[in-house]
Amino acid sequence: MPTYHKPEAKTIQELKDIAHKLRIDSINATQASKSGHPTSCASIAEIMSVLFFNTMRYKLSAPRDPSSDRFILSKGHAAPILYAAWAEAGLFPVEDLMNLRKIDSDLEGHPTPRLNFIDVGTGSLGQGVAVACGMAYVGKNLDKADYRTYVLVGDGESAEGSIWESLHFAGYYKLNNLCVIFDVNRLGQSEATSLQHQMEVYRKRLDAFGFNAIVVDGHDVEELCKAFFEAASTTDRPTAIIAKTYKGKHFPNIEDLENWHGKPLGDAAADVVAHLQKQIRNPGPIALAPPSPQKESAPKVSIKGVELATPPAYQKGEQVATRLAYGTALAKIAMNNDRVIALDGDTKNSTYSDKLRKAFPERFIECFIAEQNLVGVAIGAACRDRTVAFVSTFATFFTRAFDQIRMGAISQTNVNFVGSHCGVSIGEDGPSQMGLEDIAMFRAIPGSTVFYPADAVSTERAVEMAANTPGVCFIRTSRPNTAVIYENNEKFEIGKCKVVKQNANDSVLLIGAGITLYEALKAADELEKSGIHCRVIDPFTVKPLDQEGIIKHGAQCGGRVVVVEDHYKQGGLGEAVLSALAEQRNFVVKHLGVDKLPRSGPPTVLVDMFGISARSVAAAVQEIIKM
Amino acid sequence: MPTYHKPEAKTIQELKDIAHKLRIDSINATQASKSGHPTSCASIAEIMSVLFFNTMRYKLSAPRDPSSDRFILSKGHAAPILYAAWAEAGLFPVEDLMNLRKIDSDLEGHPTPRLNFIDVGTGSLGQGVAVACGMAYVGKNLDKADYRTYVLVGDGESAEGSIWESLHFAGYYKLNNLCVIFDVNRLGQSEATSLQHQMEVYRKRLDAFGFNAIVVDGHDVEELCKAFFEAASTTDRPTAIIAKTYKGKHFPNIEDLENWHGKPLGDAAADVVAHLQKQIRNPGPIALAPPSPQKESAPKVSIKGVELATPPAYQKGEQVATRLAYGTALAKIAMNNDRVIALDGDTKNSTYSDKLRKAFPERFIECFIAEQNLVGVAIGAACRDRTVAFVSTFATFFTRAFDQIRMGAISQTNVNFVGSHCGVSIGEDGPSQMGLEDIAMFRAIPGSTVFYPADAVSTERAVEMAANTPGVCFIRTSRPNTAVIYENNEKFEIGKCKVVKQNANDSVLLIGAGITLYEALKAADELEKSGIHCRVIDPFTVKPLDQEGIIKHGAQCGGRVVVVEDHYKQGGLGEAVLSALAEQRNFVVKHLGVDKLPRSGPPTVLVDMFGISARSVAAAVQEIIKM
Repeated sequence: MPTYHKPEAKTIQELKDIAHKLRIDSINATQASKSGHPTSCASIAEIMSVLFFNTMRYKLSAPRDPSSDRFILSKGHAAPILYAAWAEAGLFPVEDLMNLRKIDSDLEGHPTPRLNFIDVGTGSLGQGVAVACGMAYVGKNLDKADYRTYVLVGDGESAEGSIWESLHFAGYYKLNNLCVIFDVNRLGQSEATSLQHQMEVYRKRLDAFGFNAIVVDGHDVEELCKAFFEAASTTDRPTAIIAKTYKGKHFPNIEDLENWHGKPLGDAAADVVAHLQKQIRNPGPIALAPPSPQKESAPKVSIKGVELATPPAYQKGEQVATRLAYGTALAKIAMNNDRVIALDGDTKNSTYSDKLRKAFPERFIECFIAEQNLVGVAIGAACRDRTVAFVSTFATFFTRAFDQIRMGAISQTNVNFVGSHCGVSIGEDGPSQMGLEDIAMFRAIPGSTVFYPADAVSTERAVEMAANTPGVCFIRTSRPNTAVIYENNEKFEIGKCKVVKQNANDSVLLIGAGITLYEALKAADELEKSGIHCRVIDPFTVKPLDQEGIIKHGAQCGGRVVVVEDHYKQGGLGEAVLSALAEQRNFVVKHLGVDKLPRSGPPTVLVDMFGISARSVAAAVQEIIKM
Repeated sequence: MPTYHKPEAKTIQELKDIAHKLRIDSINATQASKSGHPTSCASIAEIMSVLFFNTMRYKLSAPRDPSSDRFILSKGHAAPILYAAWAEAGLFPVEDLMNLRKIDSDLEGHPTPRLNFIDVGTGSLGQGVAVACGMAYVGKNLDKADYRTYVLVGDGESAEGSIWESLHFAGYYKLNNLCVIFDVNRLGQSEATSLQHQMEVYRKRLDAFGFNAIVVDGHDVEELCKAFFEAASTTDRPTAIIAKTYKGKHFPNIEDLENWHGKPLGDAAADVVAHLQKQIRNPGPIALAPPSPQKESAPKVSIKGVELATPPAYQKGEQVATRLAYGTALAKIAMNNDRVIALDGDTKNSTYSDKLRKAFPERFIECFIAEQNLVGVAIGAACRDRTVAFVSTFATFFTRAFDQIRMGAISQTNVNFVGSHCGVSIGEDGPSQMGLEDIAMFRAIPGSTVFYPADAVSTERAVEMAANTPGVCFIRTSRPNTAVIYENNEKFEIGKCKVVKQNANDSVLLIGAGITLYEALKAADELEKSGIHCRVIDPFTVKPLDQEGIIKHGAQCGGRVVVVEDHYKQGGLGEAVLSALAEQRNFVVKHLGVDKLPRSGPPTVLVDMFGISARSVAAAVQEIIKM
């Protein structure tokens, strides 16, 4: 291990001074905004000072430089001091801090990447470590670069299980380029934290999770400098710096007291600021400059223009599960771009993401059964455009990570989610394994794109498009085999439906997706025998939905629409169609979906029992034809 | 500590025999169903034998007897051996096991409470410990009874952070009546688990989380008997029994091998069964009877007929936040029923659940910042009708527990969820704290009831109704104050809207809820000045929605409907209205909702900026009036 050299006394003093300046900035900003969390800032003032003015290597000229160290403030409510650190370092004028939380300022209540120095949104607690793990994993294994990743976690949020998923991941993959700092300030929002200042308990837990666990006085800049040095010199494990701190440190009559969470200091502010100013030895400009990255260690990469290495190659009518086509496409897009990666949570042999692992083992990240971390790692891996990440598990298990996906949208992530085993058509495994709310969930993510391909050809194209589409993409794949219905050279567009059956005299428009497209087709064929002609469309994307196409074809069918989906009736394809038609008079829609809790049984029996088979579609057509 | 007496040799032998019988039952059942997880059953055969025939005290005559020990199979995919244990104990004929996973059998692929011996559905991994914690907490602190709670966890699922939230909870509350058994069988679904057989790592982690951690040979019935005795004799802590086991134990050529997850044995079955039969010394009927509970230790309780102790007492026009009215109502319903409890995740001073804590501290469970465990504990606490549980946090943080809530529906839970801080109207804290997908989420829960009260009076009644309504209930509360608009004696019904403004010549129907009801009213008042009359309705419940009322009033307004909501446009009130009108020709709906990622700012500014203020409602009316 390299030898530690204590910083000069002058540096130590300046780091102390900076900590107090950051405290004052945080107080002033939250006074101006009349809301915010100054006491949560105060407990980390020395940590921020040491990180931003002594330890981290980064460029003010390029805050998202790929070779720079990363910093994630997992306890996002301490945003004011993060903004203050960047301002005091010189990124923007300190006076701008007074715009905190204003409608026309990007200095929001919690950090978001609207700011050029923020990688991910934080504020929903317990998510920063997963993101940091994704960054550190990429840094170590893909970039093979020397940048380090720091993540600052509150003690309150360390009760979140997601944190422990991520710590386990970091320990398992020996992410020695990761440093997790715990701000153990003893106080939560509404009472003391469960562990308060039991530093030894934290140490034991982190040690058991595979970390080099160092307990420090979080208000002692010297101890912090040394601990960060030790972290950077530890080669076999990630490091946890467990900092004993006090909420509202150096705020007289406020420090370590309850009932000061999330409140500006109000009338107490002036006295506190005066007190803090007295602690500062050198009130002049800050002399310390942030250390720069030693070299451009991260390789230049491109994540644009991802393409299938070879076009889809199926026979029409061939029976292929869309989940299998996903695996095939994933391996194909990975051939031409070495930044395509896949992550899974021990379901890779069911989702078929293992096809990428077989082809490119170094680009597959097994995250084991821990979906929150799985999603967070993917978001971290995709930061700064380092990778094109595809993350897969059973569709319904993404509910486990809904909060992470929601925050992913705030983080402007481009991660692609692939959920297999949707709907009652999975069969015997029963309701716990059936994705029946996944479309509702992903539709409610701002800016998301939701693909629901019915056959293997469209699935391969969905994968290719998702890789190139900004924002959260979701691809819903099915467990049963479905017939290939598209030519291998068929062109697909996001927001454009496909008409898979039509006649001039169609009187009802049927809309199905995935397995229900086939039920709709079967019903249409059957109805044709009795002279009822139905047009059938495959939406391809549920969001955006082809509003224009549906209105046009629906109108041509007398305004009669039947939608059938293997999903609960709330928030899925049916309601997407209803939204598209909302402002149209003279439409009627029959909506078939799963409307009660399903059970175990054979797929085809369940599809029929829960009212989404061809039989039910035909019955709905017989009714709507009279409307 | 009491002295341990080793069971007689005959008992030990019989427990061994039973384990093999359970293995054979599991193989036979999964052979019959042609799907399922026999190897995952085999690793826990001795654990199940000892628990069901030596350790647990329970009644076959009343499988959900309140005084009996509880057992949760967190690794729900091992369902066949759980069913086999109950069958072999005598609850139902062993032959019935051959109906596993059939459409007309409740022996589903994963356990659900359709079976009278199952408390909660499992199968989505990592959820059993939280439920067990809820049961154990109630047993220890509310029932003050001597029943014990056992939960069996797979090693694969122990990567789920939810498990660690729960272990921390159990350690913190010193739930000495809880025993968590880890089945460390080394193999996951698609590869080995991350920790494989590193028993000492498990031991260290569990010790650090406050458990009496005992490592045993999970296939040694004597060791297991002793460990369970030690668990029951440990008074200061919960116990973790960490069992080293092998997947497919005693299945020749299958034991401890990969690629045998979730597969029946097929052609190998006959040889394996023959091999197992040879291990059985006494192939005759099982002589051991399950131990009975020593006494009726759990008190008789009633959770029916919960009522507000005093009616709402507000002045019309008074400004009261609905989140505050929630707290008031919660304390009131708790006065007349000592089984009303509240749980929160360190937001009690924001959600106002602290009003119950102040009134009845022993009935408030602080779960700290760990929402998955928070929800799981509530579900456990409500099992066997022991409590009426209300669980609160910020609405958006329930996304963290979507999977638990989803499984709650499968578990037939009656837990009531209360989400505060919905929508952009929370203001400066920004998007990470805004509930904008919570209605979409709760609507997609089968059998759920979604209340969205606009004022304090309706909120109090919503709380009272939720307490008495089966299934998942969700009450959405708002941060800003809103005017009281209802009389204190106003009657409310689930699925019945309230007309809050009407005239004979109304030409547009406005539907708002929570803060947007007031925006709709304001718009209506403004429009009236220019001669446009609008009817305004408050849905009260979004699910079920008053379809009949909306159709009737909408038709009276020329089929013109404007819906406005402080929620993303997907899956919320607007789409619920569209669903209600789906089969009506001659309606047009304008839908105002948040359609992009919001930001920090003052509440009123945000409400206007994101198009859900009175101004936008008025503009929508001006457009729709021409349609």
